[in-house]
Amino acid sequence: MGRAETRRLQAAMKRRGFDAYVATHNTRYLAGTTAGKAVVVPLTGEPILICSRLEFSRAKAESGIKNIQALSGWKAPLNKGESVYVGELWHLIAKSLGEIDARVVGYDRLGAQTLRKIRNAHHAGYRELPELILDLRMIKSGYELGLVRKSAAIASKGMALAAELAEVGRTELEIAAEVEHGMRRAGSEGTSFPTIVASGKNSWFPHASATGKKLGKGELVVVDLGATFNGYCSDMTRTFALSPTSKQLRIVEVVKQAQRAAVVEARPGVKASSLDGAARKVIARAGYARFATHGTGHGVGMEIHEPPSLAPGSRDVMREGMVFTIEPGFYVPRLGGVRWEDMVLIKKNGRELLTR
Amino acid sequence: MGRAETRRLQAAMKRRGFDAYVATHNTRYLAGTTAGKAVVVPLTGEPILICSRLEFSRAKAESGIKNIQALSGWKAPLNKGESVYVGELWHLIAKSLGEIDARVVGYDRLGAQTLRKIRNAHHAGYRELPELILDLRMIKSGYELGLVRKSAAIASKGMALAAELAEVGRTELEIAAEVEHGMRRAGSEGTSFPTIVASGKNSWFPHASATGKKLGKGELVVVDLGATFNGYCSDMTRTFALSPTSKQLRIVEVVKQAQRAAVVEARPGVKASSLDGAARKVIARAGYARFATHGTGHGVGMEIHEPPSLAPGSRDVMREGMVFTIEPGFYVPRLGGVRWEDMVLIKKNGRELLTR
Repeated sequence: MGRAETRRLQAAMKRRGFDAYVATHNTRYLAGTTAGKAVVVPLTGEPILICSRLEFSRAKAESGIKNIQALSGWKAPLNKGESVYVGELWHLIAKSLGEIDARVVGYDRLGAQTLRKIRNAHHAGYRELPELILDLRMIKSGYELGLVRKSAAIASKGMALAAELAEVGRTELEIAAEVEHGMRRAGSEGTSFPTIVASGKNSWFPHASATGKKLGKGELVVVDLGATFNGYCSDMTRTFALSPTSKQLRIVEVVKQAQRAAVVEARPGVKASSLDGAARKVIARAGYARFATHGTGHGVGMEIHEPPSLAPGSRDVMREGMVFTIEPGFYVPRLGGVRWEDMVLIKKNGRELLTR
Repeated sequence: MGRAETRRLQAAMKRRGFDAYVATHNTRYLAGTTAGKAVVVPLTGEPILICSRLEFSRAKAESGIKNIQALSGWKAPLNKGESVYVGELWHLIAKSLGEIDARVVGYDRLGAQTLRKIRNAHHAGYRELPELILDLRMIKSGYELGLVRKSAAIASKGMALAAELAEVGRTELEIAAEVEHGMRRAGSEGTSFPTIVASGKNSWFPHASATGKKLGKGELVVVDLGATFNGYCSDMTRTFALSPTSKQLRIVEVVKQAQRAAVVEARPGVKASSLDGAARKVIARAGYARFATHGTGHGVGMEIHEPPSLAPGSRDVMREGMVFTIEPGFYVPRLGGVRWEDMVLIKKNGRELLTR
């Protein structure tokens, strides 16, 4: 991480007329370390990484960025050869912008008060444009894809474990705990979101979590889980049916067909909204349109939700190197909720499922 | 959660001259649910909770707030009796402020662009003042203390497990995975931060994580972990010594003494900076002052780091009901890092350790 991303960002900055960009929310993407608080990128030349003084050694070891500025909120005792700026983050950002002599500054995320302080200390035009980096992040590099694949493989292992454990009498929390443990042992740094194990009436809500409720006979169980690997998230959902009625089996079949209908459409040049439409059509044909209350998918990378968006009205278009979920779902009170989700990579001539 | 916190916030708003307060970062504290995106609190009367349409049922079930507004980014199919605002969060915030007819608005956290949009849609004075809620959150209610105690008890269990597992030959990651699993099974919702197991040369860095490195003979091992329970964090650190030298044993002893020196000073009316000073003095007397690079503690609650701050120059003063860590540490290259941390509750006549 680092150098290639910086070059791509600088090219994007040039097109937008920025002569500096301040990233507080994409530091890991630009600097290849979680040790940074902010990265200040000039239009040409090398970026500046700002980190806490406590994180300086780690930043130096992990980041490709050479110019690292250490910050301390108090006058900590210094070691030989150590250089620390005592003050607040906004001040060091303004100082860095001053050294670059930046006139037009883009940024990804700054609080209103922080921006005011920076602006007062360094006069320039400031423009919030997180899309500048989000657009870059949408297309995964080969290096990133390696990490995403690994993260997806860990999620697949977790789901295999969930399939074994989804039995009448076990609690949702117990299954979540075992699955997370399995993923952790397989190399996950943690979950990419709180694991969902939603059974019976809990399955009617798309965003339930995992409770002390025991899985019961005649219930649908939605399991939605994800790992993180070197900062890259994964996301996968399956719906298990415990001694189901034929109507329950039917809706599981419908959601799988809806997912399949969207997956086969995925290739470069296709609109994200048409993938959503393809899944929605299958659900509508089965008579459940009004229960399909969420979009069909979202990009996945360093964040669990990032562009593109697979929803009605989305302007995103599939491009090679994009990674996103396809996860139609619908939630029928008293009958049960169903969702089926895999991660998909857009390739030159089609797509590849990263989870299975 | 909810009603009492709202009343306390309204009293604080009155003192500051705000007639509305927008919380985007303290929604769980004010609304008692994670389902909210924002809470708009008028000076008198009932607050408004804004949530995603997908979270409406959960918000209704979990929150004490009656006025809940559902939001959707796209024209989702609606069910009978459902009322959804199609648009963006900033617009619904501005609309709510308009209905209150707010002239002076405080807020905890808004992006610069979001604030501009709100301001354009609803003209008023806006002032960023997260301290208004952070000050309330510093003093835990009886209800909150119950949750903090439980979270701390889970962390203590995790540490007991770590003590059993800290053996030569086991990897840092393996210990982290087992400890997290143990805490999860004990009721934790997840870790309050990535578990640190830092052995040997990794222990020289205060903020290492857990790697594939095996624990070796003659190493110090810093284990720093935390659980979350109903949204409340815990935090605890121990340093284990594997066939240590007498010098290593000595610095473990020093850090324990430093912690003890700060703990016995903790009671209402004492400055947070003097607790830091008490610990630092013990470390300095042993000759390790320049390796004590971080503050001695921080508040713990719904966030793992919140006020008060136990560091040189801190203006915080101990008050009954505060919960914070006391965690002196120092990190000596080649010898090893040591840190010793417990959570402390300030009581009327002294303090109580919540972890053990």
